[in-house]
Amino acid sequence: MYLDELWRDIEKLLESEVTVHGWIRNHRPQKEFGFIDFSDGTSMNHLQIVYDTSLSDFEKVSSLKIGSAIEVTGLLAKSEGKGQSYELKAKKVTLLGDCPEDYPLQPKKHTLEFFRSIGYLRPRANMFQAVFRIRSVAAMAIHEYFQTHGYVYAHTPLITTADCEGENQMFKITTFDFDNIPKSNGKTDFKQDLFRKQAFITGTGQLHGEAFAMAFSKIYTFGPTFRTENSNTKTHANEFWMIEPEIAFCDLNGLMDIEEEMLKYIVNYVLKHAHDEIVFLDKFNTPGLLAKLEKLISSKFTRVTHEEVITILKKANISWEFPPEYGSDIAKEHERYITEYFEGPVFITNWPKDIKAWYMKVNEDGKTVAAVDLEIPGAGELMGGSQREENYEKLIERMKEMNVDETTVDWFCNLRKYGTCVHSGFGMGFERLLIYLTGIENIRDVIPFPRTPGSCEF
Amino acid sequence: MYLDELWRDIEKLLESEVTVHGWIRNHRPQKEFGFIDFSDGTSMNHLQIVYDTSLSDFEKVSSLKIGSAIEVTGLLAKSEGKGQSYELKAKKVTLLGDCPEDYPLQPKKHTLEFFRSIGYLRPRANMFQAVFRIRSVAAMAIHEYFQTHGYVYAHTPLITTADCEGENQMFKITTFDFDNIPKSNGKTDFKQDLFRKQAFITGTGQLHGEAFAMAFSKIYTFGPTFRTENSNTKTHANEFWMIEPEIAFCDLNGLMDIEEEMLKYIVNYVLKHAHDEIVFLDKFNTPGLLAKLEKLISSKFTRVTHEEVITILKKANISWEFPPEYGSDIAKEHERYITEYFEGPVFITNWPKDIKAWYMKVNEDGKTVAAVDLEIPGAGELMGGSQREENYEKLIERMKEMNVDETTVDWFCNLRKYGTCVHSGFGMGFERLLIYLTGIENIRDVIPFPRTPGSCEF
Repeated sequence: MYLDELWRDIEKLLESEVTVHGWIRNHRPQKEFGFIDFSDGTSMNHLQIVYDTSLSDFEKVSSLKIGSAIEVTGLLAKSEGKGQSYELKAKKVTLLGDCPEDYPLQPKKHTLEFFRSIGYLRPRANMFQAVFRIRSVAAMAIHEYFQTHGYVYAHTPLITTADCEGENQMFKITTFDFDNIPKSNGKTDFKQDLFRKQAFITGTGQLHGEAFAMAFSKIYTFGPTFRTENSNTKTHANEFWMIEPEIAFCDLNGLMDIEEEMLKYIVNYVLKHAHDEIVFLDKFNTPGLLAKLEKLISSKFTRVTHEEVITILKKANISWEFPPEYGSDIAKEHERYITEYFEGPVFITNWPKDIKAWYMKVNEDGKTVAAVDLEIPGAGELMGGSQREENYEKLIERMKEMNVDETTVDWFCNLRKYGTCVHSGFGMGFERLLIYLTGIENIRDVIPFPRTPGSCEF
Repeated sequence: MYLDELWRDIEKLLESEVTVHGWIRNHRPQKEFGFIDFSDGTSMNHLQIVYDTSLSDFEKVSSLKIGSAIEVTGLLAKSEGKGQSYELKAKKVTLLGDCPEDYPLQPKKHTLEFFRSIGYLRPRANMFQAVFRIRSVAAMAIHEYFQTHGYVYAHTPLITTADCEGENQMFKITTFDFDNIPKSNGKTDFKQDLFRKQAFITGTGQLHGEAFAMAFSKIYTFGPTFRTENSNTKTHANEFWMIEPEIAFCDLNGLMDIEEEMLKYIVNYVLKHAHDEIVFLDKFNTPGLLAKLEKLISSKFTRVTHEEVITILKKANISWEFPPEYGSDIAKEHERYITEYFEGPVFITNWPKDIKAWYMKVNEDGKTVAAVDLEIPGAGELMGGSQREENYEKLIERMKEMNVDETTVDWFCNLRKYGTCVHSGFGMGFERLLIYLTGIENIRDVIPFPRTPGSCEF
């Protein structure tokens, strides 16, 4: 029996005999009895196992080492000790898989750096048990939100031959032997590669998402994404997961409604389904986490334009490291200030067109685009979205202005020819959401096996 | 308002005014009135729009073309016509996005080949509306099954530097300029690439899944997977989605219990949540589909060994194209026969070790491994799984026998040193499941944007 089932049926199981399998997280052998802190990883709630000299192999059990896999049969009882509500009075303890004395995961304080160096073992540590279970629960929250709101989950392709993102941001993929690349007229002959063209791993599902939105109205993607960025920061990884909803017949205001509703839904869901995990992190890792998340649910999300934000920043009596400018992007210090200023999440809309992407709808002022970034207190930018340019001629004009090659995405442009309509979409980095949900600061610690420049171990 | 909301609240909305946005799927203008077959893609159930000369722009509305995006405000009423239960009596019809006469998706019979040639438009066709909505619903079924059974969803990495799968089956990824690959001593200098090593896109999450199962007991992966196979068949694609659950303290029999329970759960869920879609395909594409799926739910899944299967095949009075042999794999014709023989799904266990993977547990006979393939009537092999070798020494021995380089997966082997335990897992190709659930025969038609050799359009 697994612990998640045991805890679910605990009242029914009391005073009955159960058999559990799992690992010794800690062990305190005494002279005539002993306590094993036992978990199989299906619950934050470990089970205390109590044994005494009534076991014929008491000595052997007393010598069981931390990290070992064991099978225990015993009687489930209310605990007499402090702190524990229930315990398993062992009748039989069997060693399944031994663990050496030098097991790296001894029950003491380890640094995050150390944990990263044993990436294949760290999911067994309490903090990572909490983080990765929250990751799983948050993923489910996202699916449940969209599926119960009539969205179709679209598996957009990762392999692409369109290089409209700029090929330097995308990984190239090939079946070629690197030491023997076929050439034609001195250049690589991609006609001999599997797709007969140069192929990439894409960094976005948006283009294909739009094609699906023109068929199903409401769609979302949720899958891995890749960037070649050679930067070693707390927030960059070369492989991460993204959610990209795309909605037909939805303008920028409608998009903000959806973003706000979705985020509150996720936070609510996580508080309900990963409550023990949030409480654990609140207690041992991120004081105030629970209160922060509970506050978000009842927060009013402010909506201001980029221009209004710059005005507020300029008026602030602060000597900025990066002076705020109309027409320019804002810095992290500005993001922080503006969420404090409005005491909650802030949607910043109508960004200068020159610093945003080519597919965004240019506003009537000719200077700004109908884009929106969502800034969250203590987390910075969590989502970025926009209304899309739905007019064929305007889109093509914009692509020319911004030197985007339209030939590889002609089908995408053609969506504007066949029953085009107002539509909008946004992207949310899943790890950014997790950093917010857990309070864990480094992206490397919310990804099961992170990939960053020079680092692809395990 | 979207149609999914409209149909959900149809009884409440009757006789009230609503505004809908969507596309003209068909249009029958008459002299004094007209009918528009209208859909926004959120439901298989289209809405019939009726208009007449009471519209001031009757002539203009009459000329609206198929594929156009429109906004319609009108009164929801019970339909007087046959076949339709409800209709929208239009008060105002506004053209949002026009569509030319030569729109490829005219409402007539098209071949699947033609649909593939307009991959970015085909999701608008009824058959693909059904298929891709079933794809979305089936994905949700999988998440719901695992999440409600205590599994953690593990996002295993796609980028890997371990080449234990054999690098010829994996795509290589790089940030290098192909025309200018850095060399060292005449060989490609991967130290200059982003990960300082040669990197690949993996074809399985199993290895990392095992590390997570040793921490959480019950885990599953669900994500895209890549194979470089240069084969153009109905069942091969270079990019597809896989589900790979891995369960600690679970042997081969326990694994089969899970596979059977999961499959029945998915089919049940799809029948409930995509009922209209299944009925549509049953009617227009795959006669018998509904009955087939309903039958599966109450089917008894047979469990036989590979040896028993070969004996049955040899006894059969059939001249096989591929004569069945003990010690060899079975062919498609054998798969078909054996599910007919047992009149239902069949688990085939204990396969000859030489034709299976290095990580599978060798049985006590020394000749077979604790592997299992699930064969489904009319679909062939749907899942493949095994109990894993949990003994360190035996695993290393097996890797040497099968020439698997252990140095790049030493961490995986080490899982056997730190509290090892019996564990098992399986893989299910998501598209194979969809082919079964929809009756669609070609993998290209159940993937939104398929990638196959020489074909990476859209």
